[in-house]
Amino acid sequence: MKQNEDKLILQALREDISNEDITTNAIVDGNCIGKVDLICKQDGILAGLEVFKRVFELLDENAELESKFKDGDSVKEGDLVAVVHAKVRALLSGERTALNFLQRMSGIATHTRDLVKELEGTNTKLLDTRKTTPNMRIFEKYAIRVGGGHNHRFNLSDGILIKDNHINAAGSIKKAVELARNYAPFGMKIEVEVENLDMVKEALEAKADIIMLDNMDYETMKKAVEIIGGRAVTECSGNVTKDKLSKIAKIGVDFVSSGALTHSSLTLDFSMKNLEIIGEK
Amino acid sequence: MKQNEDKLILQALREDISNEDITTNAIVDGNCIGKVDLICKQDGILAGLEVFKRVFELLDENAELESKFKDGDSVKEGDLVAVVHAKVRALLSGERTALNFLQRMSGIATHTRDLVKELEGTNTKLLDTRKTTPNMRIFEKYAIRVGGGHNHRFNLSDGILIKDNHINAAGSIKKAVELARNYAPFGMKIEVEVENLDMVKEALEAKADIIMLDNMDYETMKKAVEIIGGRAVTECSGNVTKDKLSKIAKIGVDFVSSGALTHSSLTLDFSMKNLEIIGEK
Amino acid sequence: MKQNEDKLILQALREDISNEDITTNAIVDGNCIGKVDLICKQDGILAGLEVFKRVFELLDENAELESKFKDGDSVKEGDLVAVVHAKVRALLSGERTALNFLQRMSGIATHTRDLVKELEGTNTKLLDTRKTTPNMRIFEKYAIRVGGGHNHRFNLSDGILIKDNHINAAGSIKKAVELARNYAPFGMKIEVEVENLDMVKEALEAKADIIMLDNMDYETMKKAVEIIGGRAVTECSGNVTKDKLSKIAKIGVDFVSSGALTHSSLTLDFSMKNLEIIGEK
Amino acid sequence: MKQNEDKLILQALREDISNEDITTNAIVDGNCIGKVDLICKQDGILAGLEVFKRVFELLDENAELESKFKDGDSVKEGDLVAVVHAKVRALLSGERTALNFLQRMSGIATHTRDLVKELEGTNTKLLDTRKTTPNMRIFEKYAIRVGGGHNHRFNLSDGILIKDNHINAAGSIKKAVELARNYAPFGMKIEVEVENLDMVKEALEAKADIIMLDNMDYETMKKAVEIIGGRAVTECSGNVTKDKLSKIAKIGVDFVSSGALTHSSLTLDFSMKNLEIIGEK
Amino acid sequence: MKQNEDKLILQALREDISNEDITTNAIVDGNCIGKVDLICKQDGILAGLEVFKRVFELLDENAELESKFKDGDSVKEGDLVAVVHAKVRALLSGERTALNFLQRMSGIATHTRDLVKELEGTNTKLLDTRKTTPNMRIFEKYAIRVGGGHNHRFNLSDGILIKDNHINAAGSIKKAVELARNYAPFGMKIEVEVENLDMVKEALEAKADIIMLDNMDYETMKKAVEIIGGRAVTECSGNVTKDKLSKIAKIGVDFVSSGALTHSSLTLDFSMKNLEIIGEK
Amino acid sequence: MKQNEDKLILQALREDISNEDITTNAIVDGNCIGKVDLICKQDGILAGLEVFKRVFELLDENAELESKFKDGDSVKEGDLVAVVHAKVRALLSGERTALNFLQRMSGIATHTRDLVKELEGTNTKLLDTRKTTPNMRIFEKYAIRVGGGHNHRFNLSDGILIKDNHINAAGSIKKAVELARNYAPFGMKIEVEVENLDMVKEALEAKADIIMLDNMDYETMKKAVEIIGGRAVTECSGNVTKDKLSKIAKIGVDFVSSGALTHSSLTLDFSMKNLEIIGEK
Repeated sequence: MKQNEDKLILQALREDISNEDITTNAIVDGNCIGKVDLICKQDGILAGLEVFKRVFELLDENAELESKFKDGDSVKEGDLVAVVHAKVRALLSGERTALNFLQRMSGIATHTRDLVKELEGTNTKLLDTRKTTPNMRIFEKYAIRVGGGHNHRFNLSDGILIKDNHINAAGSIKKAVELARNYAPFGMKIEVEVENLDMVKEALEAKADIIMLDNMDYETMKKAVEIIGGRAVTECSGNVTKDKLSKIAKIGVDFVSSGALTHSSLTLDFSMKNLEIIGEK
Repeated sequence: MKQNEDKLILQALREDISNEDITTNAIVDGNCIGKVDLICKQDGILAGLEVFKRVFELLDENAELESKFKDGDSVKEGDLVAVVHAKVRALLSGERTALNFLQRMSGIATHTRDLVKELEGTNTKLLDTRKTTPNMRIFEKYAIRVGGGHNHRFNLSDGILIKDNHINAAGSIKKAVELARNYAPFGMKIEVEVENLDMVKEALEAKADIIMLDNMDYETMKKAVEIIGGRAVTECSGNVTKDKLSKIAKIGVDFVSSGALTHSSLTLDFSMKNLEIIGEK
Repeated sequence: MKQNEDKLILQALREDISNEDITTNAIVDGNCIGKVDLICKQDGILAGLEVFKRVFELLDENAELESKFKDGDSVKEGDLVAVVHAKVRALLSGERTALNFLQRMSGIATHTRDLVKELEGTNTKLLDTRKTTPNMRIFEKYAIRVGGGHNHRFNLSDGILIKDNHINAAGSIKKAVELARNYAPFGMKIEVEVENLDMVKEALEAKADIIMLDNMDYETMKKAVEIIGGRAVTECSGNVTKDKLSKIAKIGVDFVSSGALTHSSLTLDFSMKNLEIIGEK
Repeated sequence: MKQNEDKLILQALREDISNEDITTNAIVDGNCIGKVDLICKQDGILAGLEVFKRVFELLDENAELESKFKDGDSVKEGDLVAVVHAKVRALLSGERTALNFLQRMSGIATHTRDLVKELEGTNTKLLDTRKTTPNMRIFEKYAIRVGGGHNHRFNLSDGILIKDNHINAAGSIKKAVELARNYAPFGMKIEVEVENLDMVKEALEAKADIIMLDNMDYETMKKAVEIIGGRAVTECSGNVTKDKLSKIAKIGVDFVSSGALTHSSLTLDFSMKNLEIIGEK
Repeated sequence: MKQNEDKLILQALREDISNEDITTNAIVDGNCIGKVDLICKQDGILAGLEVFKRVFELLDENAELESKFKDGDSVKEGDLVAVVHAKVRALLSGERTALNFLQRMSGIATHTRDLVKELEGTNTKLLDTRKTTPNMRIFEKYAIRVGGGHNHRFNLSDGILIKDNHINAAGSIKKAVELARNYAPFGMKIEVEVENLDMVKEALEAKADIIMLDNMDYETMKKAVEIIGGRAVTECSGNVTKDKLSKIAKIGVDFVSSGALTHSSLTLDFSMKNLEIIGEK
Repeated sequence: MKQNEDKLILQALREDISNEDITTNAIVDGNCIGKVDLICKQDGILAGLEVFKRVFELLDENAELESKFKDGDSVKEGDLVAVVHAKVRALLSGERTALNFLQRMSGIATHTRDLVKELEGTNTKLLDTRKTTPNMRIFEKYAIRVGGGHNHRFNLSDGILIKDNHINAAGSIKKAVELARNYAPFGMKIEVEVENLDMVKEALEAKADIIMLDNMDYETMKKAVEIIGGRAVTECSGNVTKDKLSKIAKIGVDFVSSGALTHSSLTLDFSMKNLEIIGEK
């Protein structure tokens, strides 16, 4: 919802402009209108163009963006991704915030697409995690989808995931699943994180909907998938790197999740160039 | 100021717990008290321990953290970095948010320290940029300092940096500096970004306090530093990578800035393990 | 999470005290300490005692509440439910807001308990809906659970429910379920609302996890449950009144949902009496 | 003021859409434009049509509502109350929130109108109280007026009402009124709540502007009104039910207040039907 | 209510510390505890000591203030008004904000007391207006009372004042009063602003509760008071200066209001001196 | 940035209209359109016209303001400064808030211009301080510039000023400057406040960029300027009054700062007159 994003974009603008953009306001008149190019400086996947545009709209309600690209498109070094028209003050004051969003989101989408390719032709899907940057989750989870990944639960309020500490607290997987099923809002599946084959069996008996195979070697994971035999959805988790993906997919897990997609993606480089002043308002 | 950070930490908690932590609340009683270990899983520099602790305090005002470490310390894989005591619900519900802050901040500090080492024994200092994650700047700029770096301006309101687009809008470096000097709050230095030696000379004539040498090759940069001859502070900027640092330092620039410190650091891995329930409140 | 509730409680206090409680501040000294009784004036189920207490804590951090009751307990007309100790100004200024929360929450819990009784001894469970009072959902959904009901999804972000308008937009149930399954965060079940037996079959073929039987007569509902035969969870919805519940349960649907629980519960009456001034701080 | 209402409406939208409307976004394209009918499902009084409309405007600034009805009008089961045009995503995502406001407000207006009728032809007016739903007062007090009722004070900051606990704290009605008169902002009348005829006399002597006759039987109330003899405005309060109203009015009190109007009104049922997709934007 | 004030005090702190107090944090260790004296530098009336103290508590929850003075006391140049104990960082970072509140509030209280003296021995009371500094009203209106003045309505929502523009819009005083009486929340008096004797008569006939004599010369005002003859409360308004007060009081108006009390009071000077470091925490 | 100002203007509107403007809403229909004149009632300098206008735009998005004047212009008693067109409700409800901003800002600009004149023909510039009204700094610092003054640092986060308490804490000026230089964000000058000539010398040796001569007599100040001899920027501070300005300027300090500009300016009087109703919307 735009209303959720606007709040965070405005906050980011205020973070960067706690009072005013001194340099720009010293030099550029408030009525001056211009345009500027958004240039891609690295090959990758575009994500966040709407957010990029929204930054300028929040500074100048008449800001406009022309682009032949949309989120999910491949962009190449040198591509003219978009042209932004707005008050020159808005263009200069919003530049860094707009790029900070776009670069991070595109970096995540690019990273995601890169991993998703390893899974092509298999039935295994790529998932993200909650290892996102604080106060950026809405943007980062969106970028995952743009890159071809799928979202795990958004937060602690919209999904059930029973981990080791929960199992300890409850006494057993069985008890934990029972408590969760009784408490959970209607419509949520129960996921249990397991570390070995005994736990797999317990989770199955407890009728977990999803079983997360955490940090298992290939051999164990394979056996786990056999034991489960389609009676629960399976997720593979734990230090999943690109080179392991095709091997994991062969084992036949339904999903594989990677925290690095959000916590350790590099940004994709863009810059705003060729500012042109085109009139007064 | 704690008041600024609290607002962002609370917001991050609400991002992850829009309603309630369903799994934890289903399984753990609200009065249950426990402790949990914070374990380091990668070598690096610790940053964000106060923020990590604050997450739990905001969920349980009696939360306490014991630690022999402080921000800036080296941590090694396997180190028991801290023990947190709090209500078990707070420990489980705050875990991910606390780690998301700590891992990102420590990742940046580790990256920074790594680059700062290249500059040891020289007079050149490492600077960050405004290429930070939206709504994380206060935490990321702090992590830079923990890692041994220095902060460039915090935002557009507390520093003057005249870039190419400003120069175009003003007509000349001279005019831009004049406008900025007249408008700027008292006590701010004027920095000008230049791309070639002619611009260096213009900036000097305009009496810029700081001259940023943007994307110059070593040879040009060297000449620029000679021309400036101590009459302005110098900053080198533009795709600065680790391997170039010692060479840049030899040229004798005062500062070198790196956007990658904040936009492309990997996180440092930590986990919370060994939850123990120790009583009721 | 206390942090989510506090925000709403504070907002309610500011709604009732936009500047100051003129009457109380005119008459009672700011240092005056006292206690007051919370008396129940109608038989019912208690819900919201923590919220009631929190109102006073937010006005006076030393406020204390003694009570032999807890949420979910039956209370009778005339019961001394609790005694609150606090600054007298806090007691008087917070009274109405505290009661407004308590009475509404207890009213919902009482209503829910009343309906839940009709389902005792059956396998059918009572669900709420999203027909809650704006900005009160967190409190109202909690009261439902206190009364013995179960929560349907909290909001549009943590559950999938495909309704007639969605089916029209997608073209068919099959297509709608497919789109939803592909887009949905991992771990969410897909629920489809159906109005007749053909739609039931379509929903089953589309492998909906939950099928909501909307506004069906008993006969149709019975056939629907037979057709589904355990292959999906079933929910009965639409003008469910108390007298119909046992009959619906006999049909064997898994869940029955009632919007009236939140949109049309009467409040349960309480009052604060016998204010006693017991000293100065 | 729209600015006060917008804040609460937006908050309600965020309550219902903490991240995104997953079902709708999965199925409906973001550019799709449509229209939908607002149908009345119960006879009553319409209240909240502007708020209903505003929900959609906040999701889509081009949303439009056509209606032959306005707040205060009688609506009948089956009436086509309005047609809303907007992006289909806005129509579907805003539906529940918009209806939650409209149904509650119309329910209160309908209840109010029903009671006001009992007072027709008399000089007694119907008042609301502060027994409103937390964070809904601005909407609920408005609905009271739409139904033909009058508003008692909005909150503790804009009216003086001296109750039993205040009188105890002050020592006497006389002293309490004196303190209040001295402290009160200029322009506020002093109201005193009394329970018996002695208190009525004291309040008169203290020159209270308004005397609230609380929980008196008809006989006592009648004597109270005689004693007051027009020297103060009179308000009757305490478990006022519909059947008592005409009898109370005959006694000649100026105002009669009912908490049930806001704390125990049932909602008036509306639904949004016949979504039609009419193009792309 | 503390909750209303805290929000504004925190906001003022964030205005002054958008990121951190660089000077103080560079020089003073975060654990360092100290004390500092609050010295009065001008004779006047103290107002705002609680707000002054609250600034430090919000920066350091263990901050303490010792003082022999309270709001409303006379202070003299050189008086040691208070000693504040807190973390040294809190003392230095909060100093300016705390003084900005205290100086402004004490300036208003001093100004008010000065004018109130002119009215001693008369029945005329001094009122403030809504000509307050934006977002400071709660503090400024309080300071007025500390100085011995009385508050006119707090804002547009808690009082009725019919001015020339309202009368024009309504067509006549009579019509305007009628509309207001019908719409106004119960318990509010109706005030009408009049400019000549004809309007006085009209207002009386309309049964206005309060008549504001705006910008009348002494002679006219005198006649107005005679005509009113106690049938309405009277308020004199319009460029009221100190020298006119005793003459206005002699005329026998009930209240006289002065906008200058809040819009043009000079501040009362205080400073924080003698910082002493007394340990570590 | 409009986004920063809007937040404060809206907050001021909500301060004045916590619920609704009862008088106006009682009398004026919500669709009524009108215009009103903004008249100047005192000679001075106009500041805040954009803020004045923005108040009405926030109440009615179609509000328009015509004016031949702009901020910084001289206005004379009786001037028709502007005509505002908007819904009549917006005109009446926004009047006081709009004037409160405009009058305060214009008062400061007028005061500033008055002092700036004393410095004409000299090289000394007039500075403001942080002695601003809480939550009004952004408006007050702007008004200073409109009046011809210059801004000192905006807040504690965008400038370094080492005062006596900092020096005490550090042990010496030398140490304090060293700590500050090491900690300060890049691009900030270091200012030191000194009280005597020894401190002047220490500050020079520590290579302070700016030296503030605090509360010195003319003779000492003169010597200080000689000693500094252009090696640092100089600022004169401490009870600077209009009559001292030309004498201070002759001494040759670069800047002179005055707290009274913001803490003790009188407002400039304006009023809104001649409301005319011109139609319906």
